[in-house]
Amino acid sequence: MSAESFESRLASAAETVDAVLEDLLAATARAGEIARPDRLLDAMRYATLGGGKRLRPFLLAEAARVFGADGANVLRAAASVELIHSYSLVHDDLPAMDNDDLRRGRATAHRAYDEATAILVGDSLLTLAFDVLADEKTDPDPAVRVDLVATLAIASGLGGMAGGQMLDLAAEGRFADDKAPLSLSMDDILRLQAMKTGALITASAEMGAIIGRADKAGRKALRDYGHLLGQAFQIADDLLDVESDAKTLGKATGKDSSMGKATLVGLMGVEAARERLAGLVAEAEAALNPFGDKADVLRQAARFVADRRN
Amino acid sequence: MSAESFESRLASAAETVDAVLEDLLAATARAGEIARPDRLLDAMRYATLGGGKRLRPFLLAEAARVFGADGANVLRAAASVELIHSYSLVHDDLPAMDNDDLRRGRATAHRAYDEATAILVGDSLLTLAFDVLADEKTDPDPAVRVDLVATLAIASGLGGMAGGQMLDLAAEGRFADDKAPLSLSMDDILRLQAMKTGALITASAEMGAIIGRADKAGRKALRDYGHLLGQAFQIADDLLDVESDAKTLGKATGKDSSMGKATLVGLMGVEAARERLAGLVAEAEAALNPFGDKADVLRQAARFVADRRN
Repeated sequence: MSAESFESRLASAAETVDAVLEDLLAATARAGEIARPDRLLDAMRYATLGGGKRLRPFLLAEAARVFGADGANVLRAAASVELIHSYSLVHDDLPAMDNDDLRRGRATAHRAYDEATAILVGDSLLTLAFDVLADEKTDPDPAVRVDLVATLAIASGLGGMAGGQMLDLAAEGRFADDKAPLSLSMDDILRLQAMKTGALITASAEMGAIIGRADKAGRKALRDYGHLLGQAFQIADDLLDVESDAKTLGKATGKDSSMGKATLVGLMGVEAARERLAGLVAEAEAALNPFGDKADVLRQAARFVADRRN
Repeated sequence: MSAESFESRLASAAETVDAVLEDLLAATARAGEIARPDRLLDAMRYATLGGGKRLRPFLLAEAARVFGADGANVLRAAASVELIHSYSLVHDDLPAMDNDDLRRGRATAHRAYDEATAILVGDSLLTLAFDVLADEKTDPDPAVRVDLVATLAIASGLGGMAGGQMLDLAAEGRFADDKAPLSLSMDDILRLQAMKTGALITASAEMGAIIGRADKAGRKALRDYGHLLGQAFQIADDLLDVESDAKTLGKATGKDSSMGKATLVGLMGVEAARERLAGLVAEAEAALNPFGDKADVLRQAARFVADRRN
């Protein structure tokens, strides 16, 4: 598959996931809900439907496809991961966290609305993700649904994404007496990144395997792929922060180094980081060997993540 | 059962739930987690293990007992509800929300730590609640676990607790141009309260029925009981705010009226609110008629909620 046709496949998948997110964030309260307050729902829609490549849902859906699963239910699981990703962006952007004004080229949720609303938007998106997964429309088998819930919860919580954000704030020296950035080892940085961004990407691939009824080996292969892809994603992101400009990226750049933030690129230098990135992509592709050409789209995804310009 | 023996039963249940929460918030990462960052875990423990009557876990456990379920697994489900309750207190106390310095007689999480940590504490407690419910240690039957997840998620999200907090902020006039409190009708107030505090209390009773394998009618009876109890709880809370003092309550009082906040007590007056409270307790007790004396503890709980002094 050419890079062009991959990107068009990714864009088309994003449209499909957006339609599911639209549906999940409709004005009508779902069964069991008392009411959906207008302002909260508006702000949830603003934070979730404002573009984005929808890479994590794409990975989940393509991972499921490796195992022959491609129904509408798969897209609900895919949307749940995007709900988690969207919540994390809203909370990370808050003044008390990264204090960002710009996200995907427009005002962050707390700027477009206010801080209290943004906090509740994040809480509500996070909660909705588990609501979606637990619903029988996501999979007829309760054992599959509860496995999806467990996998997403473990990846998102204190031992995964939320914990990674905590480590990231600590790395900036936020809690140190002198507020100086911590000097992190390579292992520290890898752990931080595995938690902050890697865990959710890994979970996306693994959840695709779960909903696809993969056997133990198949599930492990997808988890390994996701873990390698997550590392590649983070290095590519750090390289973009060094090399890109705000216009292309749609958010502030050069921010990492100006904050003295420890990244692998900072520790290794740009050239070594580029080499490591290429190695990770090759490893991620190799993790998919058991699936032959059925995993070609996921291989292409690994190359896309490494090569992306925004 | 006397009021004294009820209170000692409640206190003893709180100790048991605290032990489960201690275990869930242990330093060791659980399977699948990468690491539990010290500061985040400390702050989660601070926010969760700092006392509290554990009323919601108690209701869940006693509801389960009505249907003959009383194993250690029930306490995990009970703890999950307290994790949600604790998260909501941490986020509601934030400067951008209710801006409270005192909770359960000591510094709120963002005062004891900092705002960023408090945001992540809430996010992580919320996520952990679903992790706990999805784990097979909570129930051997995946269908029961996923039912618990769905019930808790719907009660906690935009159409329940989080949405109720949004309505509460709006009622204070937070988003109005003149920042003046809105003038709410009785229906508005009832909906706000049903969402903000009622939904989680209702879910606690219903989750007890779920884990107890109640039939449809039994589940509905517990949900009705929870709904009535939730209303009673809120009126009792509003009465306490008017009549109690900070020392007894362990948090700021008189705050509702000083903020011009609409409450049923404000709308009806103290005497009519007391009458309504008594009526709700009687209705809640009556909802338990199908269960005879097996539901005596839950009946006592309704009276306790109405009579409590802190």
